[in-house]
Amino acid sequence: MVRSNENYAKIPGNYLFAEIARKVAAHKEANPDKKVISLGIGDVTHPLIPTVIAAMHKAVDEMGQSESFRGYGPEQGYAFLREAIVRHDYAPRNLSITAEDIFISDGSKCDVGNFQELFAADAKVAVTDPVYPVYVDSNAMAGRAGNWTGSKWDNLIYLPCTKDNAFVPDFPKETPDIIYLCYPNNPTGTVLCKDALGAWVEYARKVGAVILFDSAYEAYVTEENIPHSIYEVPGAEEVAVEFRSFSKTAGFTGTRCAYVVVPKALRIAGPDGNPVFLQAMWNRRQATKFNGCSYIVQRGAEAIYTLEGQELVSKVVNSYMANAAKIRKGVQDLGLETFGGVNAPYIWVRTPEGLGSWDFFERLLSQTSLVCTPGAGFGPSGEGYVRLTAFGTATQTEEALKRLAALDA
Amino acid sequence: MVRSNENYAKIPGNYLFAEIARKVAAHKEANPDKKVISLGIGDVTHPLIPTVIAAMHKAVDEMGQSESFRGYGPEQGYAFLREAIVRHDYAPRNLSITAEDIFISDGSKCDVGNFQELFAADAKVAVTDPVYPVYVDSNAMAGRAGNWTGSKWDNLIYLPCTKDNAFVPDFPKETPDIIYLCYPNNPTGTVLCKDALGAWVEYARKVGAVILFDSAYEAYVTEENIPHSIYEVPGAEEVAVEFRSFSKTAGFTGTRCAYVVVPKALRIAGPDGNPVFLQAMWNRRQATKFNGCSYIVQRGAEAIYTLEGQELVSKVVNSYMANAAKIRKGVQDLGLETFGGVNAPYIWVRTPEGLGSWDFFERLLSQTSLVCTPGAGFGPSGEGYVRLTAFGTATQTEEALKRLAALDA
Repeated sequence: MVRSNENYAKIPGNYLFAEIARKVAAHKEANPDKKVISLGIGDVTHPLIPTVIAAMHKAVDEMGQSESFRGYGPEQGYAFLREAIVRHDYAPRNLSITAEDIFISDGSKCDVGNFQELFAADAKVAVTDPVYPVYVDSNAMAGRAGNWTGSKWDNLIYLPCTKDNAFVPDFPKETPDIIYLCYPNNPTGTVLCKDALGAWVEYARKVGAVILFDSAYEAYVTEENIPHSIYEVPGAEEVAVEFRSFSKTAGFTGTRCAYVVVPKALRIAGPDGNPVFLQAMWNRRQATKFNGCSYIVQRGAEAIYTLEGQELVSKVVNSYMANAAKIRKGVQDLGLETFGGVNAPYIWVRTPEGLGSWDFFERLLSQTSLVCTPGAGFGPSGEGYVRLTAFGTATQTEEALKRLAALDA
Repeated sequence: MVRSNENYAKIPGNYLFAEIARKVAAHKEANPDKKVISLGIGDVTHPLIPTVIAAMHKAVDEMGQSESFRGYGPEQGYAFLREAIVRHDYAPRNLSITAEDIFISDGSKCDVGNFQELFAADAKVAVTDPVYPVYVDSNAMAGRAGNWTGSKWDNLIYLPCTKDNAFVPDFPKETPDIIYLCYPNNPTGTVLCKDALGAWVEYARKVGAVILFDSAYEAYVTEENIPHSIYEVPGAEEVAVEFRSFSKTAGFTGTRCAYVVVPKALRIAGPDGNPVFLQAMWNRRQATKFNGCSYIVQRGAEAIYTLEGQELVSKVVNSYMANAAKIRKGVQDLGLETFGGVNAPYIWVRTPEGLGSWDFFERLLSQTSLVCTPGAGFGPSGEGYVRLTAFGTATQTEEALKRLAALDA
């Protein structure tokens, strides 16, 4: 009889957001007069900018006319979008990324989840801790994470990022083959300066590892000396893949468009020890198991790169960052320590001494009807922290701040 | 040093369409005055119907307004589309498929390519031959196909479908765990009647296999007693997954929307021998590595199920099938034997005695500037056949027929 992929059975239920939803529902039932505001969700609220809307209307019309109708597009994405990306995201920083290095997709979650397929089944994986769960779960499904011990996977290398190391991961004792880095970071909102990222690139080059660099929050970088792309570090094009998304840059979470950069120069060891090109492998993967991102959506993404588009998406990003600054200050005024929130829409809050992240979640909810995300849900080193997000509207944020001020933290 | 997935290195280059393109380019260069018409491509040419266009315009507008903007949607797809599918595609046939069984995606190629992840690494795979290459390549990437011998994979079970067995695959000697069936078939255009499909369901139940049933061409079925869904066979909901797509039904090849049906009742053996639910596993896979199909596209797909939408997409399908009937007759008038083309937009042509499929391709191209697809490109049992497609416009088809009549077959 056909048997299942045994690794799926090892994965614990993903209870974080379900558990939050359950507790919020119970709170609402007990307090029908109180309006709950979520500072827990990593989803945007601003509508798409008019430039994108206009471009998508035009593309929809094209699909309705024989002369301009488009059938199957290239699995790698249309040249118009790949070239716009190079022109705006890489060329101005003097990075030698070309359109052939860019692969358009329907989302970074898909790209990040699928990319591990290209590596050997026994490749050793390192993740920062706390961590975006997709890196871990996709490797667990492929058998690379080992077994779940109740709090950790016994074959993953965890790179703790806490107040103690200023959220800069140390190099691990055991040598990894694949290193997931996400900067600006989800969930902590912290960043790596150019030197710290450079050290990781150097480390990967030395040990022969590949860095999978998730740069979904690049648009939120405000400070100088914080890299927008890993390729700002010389030599990174030989060891790093970069994941970028229009989800948080331009509100595409429900519209769906992202891209992966797999530089031509990136080679790893093939089965016979001779080098193989990751770009060719990813191209083969996508051509076999993907059929391109919707034409309409790609035209929408292209419009982000017009002058008007750039101006309007910056305004939206700035409005979220204005929320972030206010939330940070509001939390700090309570005497709590915060991290992140300067180059990212996430604020990572240290819970009061001795209070677990779920305890703080309960206190915040019961006293203020505000929802946060307990850090423990993102990995063992997330305990003692909660995540607040800045994606609400200005009105919601103001109301949340009033309530925060009344918290007996 | 990090090593690659060794299975990728085993996969031969996918030269079929590249080789066709090369030969066509050479023909054009040698004959600049002759206009090439392709009967080789499996892509649609009709624009999207006005009902879909209107629905997508409305959805685009919603995305531009705060009140109606949508962020992340459900990974499984919106209820409005899942319910419309049940109401129109399953309930009228008295099939007990529910909205929870339906998973919306951005394409059947993705679904068909990704679904094999749920099974054990050593599951034994059977494919009909000739075959849509994605079934084979996605399993080869996962190591289930074994090694490429130059003409075949040495660990796949091939189920030849030729004139000799009237294109109805026989049960194999070796017992498979996973059986890929595609009906109406790409590339042969042939179908299984209800009894023949029922026999395969019975076989799968007996040997404990799962049938992955690709039903992308369901809308092209014209004859009675040809199942539109595998669930028309009683008991199939316990052994079969069904893949459906809006690509060929409604011209969504560049718009991107499809769905998979994974019935609740479908269980396979888990690692400890106890049954596990494939629906729960696919849900987990999609929630981890997929983030939902674009809201705009899902609204477009929903519009196909309106009365007007149904009428208009039927007209388009009928126009392609009118092409198919003409092409079939045109080929038959040359004295060549044809299969398919009655319940599918593909006509599978037996090449003249002793002529290989590439030889016939060359003859057709040089004499008439028409392009077909050599059957050998779809697997060993495709040798001696070529595929013609009916997706051209009426004008192209008329011109193609004139030229065909002049062929010295």
